[in-house]
Amino acid sequence: MAKPFRAKYNPSMRDCSETWFDKSLEILTYNRNQMVWSILVTIFGDLARRPGDRISGSLLSRLTEPMGIKPEAVRVALHRLRNDGWITSERQGRTSRYSLTAHGLSESDAASPRIYAETAPDPDATPWHLLLGEPAPASQRGEADKVWRGRGYVPIAPGAYLGRGTAHPDSAAFLIMEGTPRHVPAWLRDKIGPPELAAAYRALENALDSALPRINGAARKTPVETAILRVVIVHNWRRALLAHPDLPAMFFPPDWRGIACREKVMSALAALPRPSLESLEERNRPD
Amino acid sequence: MAKPFRAKYNPSMRDCSETWFDKSLEILTYNRNQMVWSILVTIFGDLARRPGDRISGSLLSRLTEPMGIKPEAVRVALHRLRNDGWITSERQGRTSRYSLTAHGLSESDAASPRIYAETAPDPDATPWHLLLGEPAPASQRGEADKVWRGRGYVPIAPGAYLGRGTAHPDSAAFLIMEGTPRHVPAWLRDKIGPPELAAAYRALENALDSALPRINGAARKTPVETAILRVVIVHNWRRALLAHPDLPAMFFPPDWRGIACREKVMSALAALPRPSLESLEERNRPD
Repeated sequence: MAKPFRAKYNPSMRDCSETWFDKSLEILTYNRNQMVWSILVTIFGDLARRPGDRISGSLLSRLTEPMGIKPEAVRVALHRLRNDGWITSERQGRTSRYSLTAHGLSESDAASPRIYAETAPDPDATPWHLLLGEPAPASQRGEADKVWRGRGYVPIAPGAYLGRGTAHPDSAAFLIMEGTPRHVPAWLRDKIGPPELAAAYRALENALDSALPRINGAARKTPVETAILRVVIVHNWRRALLAHPDLPAMFFPPDWRGIACREKVMSALAALPRPSLESLEERNRPD
Repeated sequence: MAKPFRAKYNPSMRDCSETWFDKSLEILTYNRNQMVWSILVTIFGDLARRPGDRISGSLLSRLTEPMGIKPEAVRVALHRLRNDGWITSERQGRTSRYSLTAHGLSESDAASPRIYAETAPDPDATPWHLLLGEPAPASQRGEADKVWRGRGYVPIAPGAYLGRGTAHPDSAAFLIMEGTPRHVPAWLRDKIGPPELAAAYRALENALDSALPRINGAARKTPVETAILRVVIVHNWRRALLAHPDLPAMFFPPDWRGIACREKVMSALAALPRPSLESLEERNRPD
């Protein structure tokens, strides 16, 4: 994705008496340094991931404005995502409608099983293998790590890649050790789940612990309120989750909250069932 | 073992008509750069490895003199082995008798299963595990490799050690991957079985191919002839074998002759059954 564009969340106080929604949104937008294009990726990925799904410009405004994102920032981010081939737009009269491209759809589809899985991966579900390569100069390692990461492997140490299932056909230059990881040492847990990511999960968990009772206690939720809260939760979750490899709990530090977070994210999303695009567009006034 | 002491094999021609023994000995002593202390280690390890076994000085002469090793060289080597705590000596009248110390016995015992095994190790016989450590500066690796080699592990790559059975109790700092090696790449085969060792096995195999028909065809073998040929075969075999880790065929280059050599060494030793020390000392004249 091209040059980042940062937003400042600034949930507006619509009236003097703070509602459950305002308070929940304030709690869940604790991370004030999000990129607008990335929030749009979450909006489309969560709400409009079926082929043919479209989101109008005015719905985008109603979803992003309460997060404190300025219309100008949304326009710039939409422009970027169009240039990157992630979304496409069409005009109908005075209304613009945006949808994921085939590329944007397939990338969103690829990430969604991991994002929405009810449980963390089971270490015994599929066989593991470790590839161990010939020692190479540090200068060549970055490129190789990138290639093997793209093939679904986790770089463990220089020239060592952990994978699941059958070894990739290009593994002839590696010792292939099939089996099961039995013990993961502290240095590797800290490398796979570094302190800044551990902190991101702690922050998300705190926010969920504080927002969930309010969400569960709300007498009535509008489709837009529901969509906005889903988006900010999925966004924080997705950003933390996709910053580290998809591995069972044994690969993370003992105080890692990623697994606890999944449970709490899933119960929040269950309390905020995905509204249909029709229900979201219903109150839509023409631009 | 302290400073090496090199011998020049120079099998003597005892009479003008070369016997099967002279010719076999000449063929099998192709490697002219052996250390005398090391040949004595083989003599004691092959012929006198039971507690209480003793070899007289004059028997040692009758075993080493046909190999072209000078009495002075044997005396220097015996002195070294005594200083190293490998052998001990006692005098009875004009005769010195030498035997392995407890240390020499236990070291010889430790090596003998591998030397005399009828077959190469089976990759599926016991489970494997790979230890993968935190990347460390090259300067610290040599010492760590030595420690893990001493614990029966094979250094595979920097910080990576291959072992059998259960992981060593000191493995907490390593990723422990239990399983089975499925593919060994060319670079690792060449590292485990380097060209100079491949050549050593080819030379041994050639010598055995040439000497075996002569040994099998001999009408009569004296105990001393049998012992000398056993010693030179076991010595060449032991020197090649103990220079590389004990691994199944899949870990060596495709043209590796180590496994073929084992079969030929074993059939040569079967044709040269170990003579008793009594039968070897029988013709002993007092020194």
